[in-house]
Amino acid sequence: MQKEIYLIICGLGNVGRAFLQLLAERGSMLTETTGLSFRVAAAVDMGGAAVAGEKGTLDLPGLLAHLDKGQAVETFQDGGIPGLSGLQALETTPANVLVETTPTNLVDGEPGNSHIRGALTAGMDVVSANKGPLVLYYRELHDLAAQNGSRLHLSAATAAALPTLDVARTCLAGATIRSAEGILNGTTNYILTRMGAEGLSFAAALAAAQELGIAETDPSYDVDGYDTANKTIIIANRIFGTGFGPADIRIEGIAGVTPEDIAAATGRGEVIKLLGRAEKTEAGITLEVVPRSLPASHPLAAVNGSEKAISYLTDTMDRVTVSGGKSSPVGAAAALLKDLINAFR
Amino acid sequence: MQKEIYLIICGLGNVGRAFLQLLAERGSMLTETTGLSFRVAAAVDMGGAAVAGEKGTLDLPGLLAHLDKGQAVETFQDGGIPGLSGLQALETTPANVLVETTPTNLVDGEPGNSHIRGALTAGMDVVSANKGPLVLYYRELHDLAAQNGSRLHLSAATAAALPTLDVARTCLAGATIRSAEGILNGTTNYILTRMGAEGLSFAAALAAAQELGIAETDPSYDVDGYDTANKTIIIANRIFGTGFGPADIRIEGIAGVTPEDIAAATGRGEVIKLLGRAEKTEAGITLEVVPRSLPASHPLAAVNGSEKAISYLTDTMDRVTVSGGKSSPVGAAAALLKDLINAFR
Repeated sequence: MQKEIYLIICGLGNVGRAFLQLLAERGSMLTETTGLSFRVAAAVDMGGAAVAGEKGTLDLPGLLAHLDKGQAVETFQDGGIPGLSGLQALETTPANVLVETTPTNLVDGEPGNSHIRGALTAGMDVVSANKGPLVLYYRELHDLAAQNGSRLHLSAATAAALPTLDVARTCLAGATIRSAEGILNGTTNYILTRMGAEGLSFAAALAAAQELGIAETDPSYDVDGYDTANKTIIIANRIFGTGFGPADIRIEGIAGVTPEDIAAATGRGEVIKLLGRAEKTEAGITLEVVPRSLPASHPLAAVNGSEKAISYLTDTMDRVTVSGGKSSPVGAAAALLKDLINAFR
Repeated sequence: MQKEIYLIICGLGNVGRAFLQLLAERGSMLTETTGLSFRVAAAVDMGGAAVAGEKGTLDLPGLLAHLDKGQAVETFQDGGIPGLSGLQALETTPANVLVETTPTNLVDGEPGNSHIRGALTAGMDVVSANKGPLVLYYRELHDLAAQNGSRLHLSAATAAALPTLDVARTCLAGATIRSAEGILNGTTNYILTRMGAEGLSFAAALAAAQELGIAETDPSYDVDGYDTANKTIIIANRIFGTGFGPADIRIEGIAGVTPEDIAAATGRGEVIKLLGRAEKTEAGITLEVVPRSLPASHPLAAVNGSEKAISYLTDTMDRVTVSGGKSSPVGAAAALLKDLINAFR
């Protein structure tokens, strides 16, 4: 038996296009293995949208070829509508799910915030790769979903192909999570790994990472710990059912880590890692992002380069650690697809 | 809204009792967080059973206290029936799920095999910590479940609190798994770790492990690779949809690993690990258990002591590795409970 799921995707940058590409490539295989048939009812970008006609689904290979030529979605011959916004598309196109992949905006969360609110209010599920609204307004969005019988799926916003939230919810079901600590940012882990392996200064390792395209020209979002903090906030809210925001986490980046700190750690048989940590004790739940010196036996100590990982400490299952997962638009797209499959299978 | 799930548990050894203990301790917490209320309709051991009366659920604290005194389940005042077998309990007691925790028997799978077949035929789900029937008859049991609309849940039989199958099914949903390789046996990993760290011979490291209770008096099931092979068979069948049995896997244990082998690996910057591997190529699917020399950068290289781990290689998500999970009756019981929650939530 086949179940049809209609999607509206907002945001056709690298992640959005990689997601459409994945659907185009393996849609029929997925229908065979999961019984789910995903149809793209509308695709929206900054200048407008393409909306499916009576078939209910856009011609994906055609749309991808159009976008690959550098053309805008609203000029697509098969349903392109210049100026149609995400909210308008959500209001006028019947669909089950919003796939939200507009850029992360940490000032007011827009336009993703309005898209997500519109979809949840309409009883639609949301799968989001966009962290902004989730970091700023998690509690409100969670409550809005609960009120409307809709669901928020966040894998792609919490380290993407590294399955942070799936492990907590599915693999640890029935156990009580005491803490989560993760290496959640590949850029900072790459810089610390180079500093450790080659005795480089922070500045030299950062420059090397920038040369390789691993660090941005303005690296502060990564190296000052904000990216790690944002993922930590979303993960903590999900696993502990809280409503933390950016004001509730202590953040220290890696710019202050010196070659002397690293040498001292090495001398103790330890390594320095930037950890996002959420811990639940009797005193409450605390969140922090801090460079920590870990013994070599710690399961996060051997996570090197731009690799990411998260380690959960539980009561009945002890410690469970997961590492890896592709860091790329394809990895994020695969995380969106995974959430869709798990939500409707 | 509360959903009541009635269980019949067959096997009251360490894992079975730990499972009942978990239910007794956190049953009401689970009802609160998941909406599921697990009731034990019958508990069966070698000499008989206890079957719930009109309340539909056994008095768990009372039963546990009775068993803790070394008493047999069939002498329990509240429903004890000497001589009632697992099959008879399954036939006469209405329930949704069989929790199968009788000892693993790799000759004919009994008595677990009959219990599982009886339950599946009756349309009941099965959660099993017992590997025997799954290794010997996976394909038949799978087909029997499909014919009867019932389901087999196998986490507790595939490295227990290490979430091998959950990661494959949930975290990697939509990705194509190319290979799975795991350190699936804590005893052999402990022995290899001691050999590597201290230059011990296999015999000396084995003796040390036996002294600590980490290796059995007859260690062959572990050190000759059979335990790893059995877990590999079940995992491969589940992730690739195959019907492999003990005849389909090449098995080499660790008794032939010498201090010279380990020193040579160390000289190359590598470590030797006993890996269970299932790989899918265009030529087909191959299964093996072999001691392998891994580069230090391999995600399984730093998994030491009696720790276990599994690493999946996929197309869209790249490599995802999970490690840890308590190796104990409590860990196995927690895995049974996890499967129950995920099956009915």
